[in-house]
Formats: sequence, C-alpha cells, structure tokens
Amino acid sequence: MQKIEHIGIAVKDIEASEQLYTLLLGTPPYKREVVESEGVITSFFRAGPNKIELLQSVSPEGVIARYIEKKGEGIHHIAYAVTDIKSEMTRLKEEGFRLLSEEPKKGADNKLICFLHPKTAGGVLVELCQERED
Amino acid sequence: MQKIEHIGIAVKDIEASEQLYTLLLGTPPYKREVVESEGVITSFFRAGPNKIELLQSVSPEGVIARYIEKKGEGIHHIAYAVTDIKSEMTRLKEEGFRLLSEEPKKGADNKLICFLHPKTAGGVLVELCQERED
Repeated sequence: MQKIEHIGIAVKDIEASEQLYTLLLGTPPYKREVVESEGVITSFFRAGPNKIELLQSVSPEGVIARYIEKKGEGIHHIAYAVTDIKSEMTRLKEEGFRLLSEEPKKGADNKLICFLHPKTAGGVLVELCQERED
Repeated sequence: MQKIEHIGIAVKDIEASEQLYTLLLGTPPYKREVVESEGVITSFFRAGPNKIELLQSVSPEGVIARYIEKKGEGIHHIAYAVTDIKSEMTRLKEEGFRLLSEEPKKGADNKLICFLHPKTAGGVLVELCQERED
C-alpha cells in the first residue's frame, strides 16, 4: 500500500460536521460530491498527503444511516492508495481476504475502488483505491 | 494538521494481527513497543508517509481490552502529526474541543501526544502527536 488515501467518517449532518472538521483540521473542505451508487453525500478535507472523507447518507435506509444507527457517528473505513487495484485485489484474495466486489467500482473523488470485508480484515472495513485515468 | 501520522487499531492478539497486517499491507512491522503508562503492547507498520499502530492490552482490565469487549476489534483512534503540539492544544481548546490531558504526554514511537475527547470530535478519538526531540 502506498499510503492512507483517506479515512471515511460516518456523519449524521454533513454541514455541521464540515464546520467541526474545518475547526479540527484548520482547513475547509475542498470538495463536496454525491455518489449516487453508494447513496452518500461526501465532503473531502486535506491533511497533507492524506484526506478525510465525511459520509452522510442520502436516505434513512442507506448503509451509512444504518451504520450510525448501530454504532453511532465515527470512523467508517480506511482507504489505502494502490497503483494497480486489480493486481492488489488478486493478491489479497489469494491471501484469504474477502472482496466485496469482483471488479473495481467507480468511487468518489475520481477513484477506482474495492472494499474488503471487515470479517477477514480484523474488524476494519478496508478500501483499496486507485486514481482513475478517464 | 500536517498528515495522518497513524491509525490505532485495537486487537486481541498482537501476534495474529501482525500476521494479518503483514499480508494486508505487504510489509512486516518495523517495531514492537510496550507503553507501560497506557497499558498496551504496540506494533507499527509503515504505509508510505503513514503508519498503522496495532494495540493490544497488557491486562484484561486495560482500556484496549475494555474497548474490544464493548465494540469488538477495529479502529481505535486517528493520530494527526502536528509541529507544535502545545499551540494546537491551546487552539483546539479555544475552539471547544475537550482535551484528555492538560499537558502533552510521552507516547509510543518517540512522540509527545494528547487525545481529544470523542464527544467533542464527532465520535472519533483524535490524537495529536509531535516528534519528541529528547
């Protein structure tokens, strides 16, 4: 893994959380983006080479809303930057990690992404992400 | 904040988790360190400019053991690197964040550290850390 690309944080109210993270990180978000396929509104902050991604569900039945109902607001996933997502997916599958999709999907912030199941990754939802070229 | 210095991950069995993270990150840990004051055994991995810190409690009553009992294994905290921890502590206190210590403490991996209470930081246990000079 090249670095931690971002940490995804589940929030109830993206505007209130944007204010909080602007104070915490000392910098405002650089982008807000709706990812229809995941049912989320995202907001991105920079912390040097890394990012913080706030995630708010677009509906009360969305995956992020259900996550917050169960566990409360907080860290949702760790995303690692990789140069070749397909070869990393093959390598990790061979090592016994369970992939949540067989092919990379389009994610927020111009990325190709794939998640690993937390059950096979020590209780952590892990995302692989590669910069998209299109 | 300069960058994400590390992500702290609560684990039950540091040896088993070291094996898992060696496979996940494709690199072995570079350091194992006991932090007596926090009651933890830590193990550190590099991911480019960032680190993963595994945390195992040294006793069944330790803070990490209690965390796992309540929430299961998984992400425990996000640590941000800062250049001047005292001025960041003053700034964040003025912004309404609650500090868990009034003065920086000695942490693992040669750091001065201070935690922010998750209640004032959107459900996330946040650590500030500055490289120690002694």
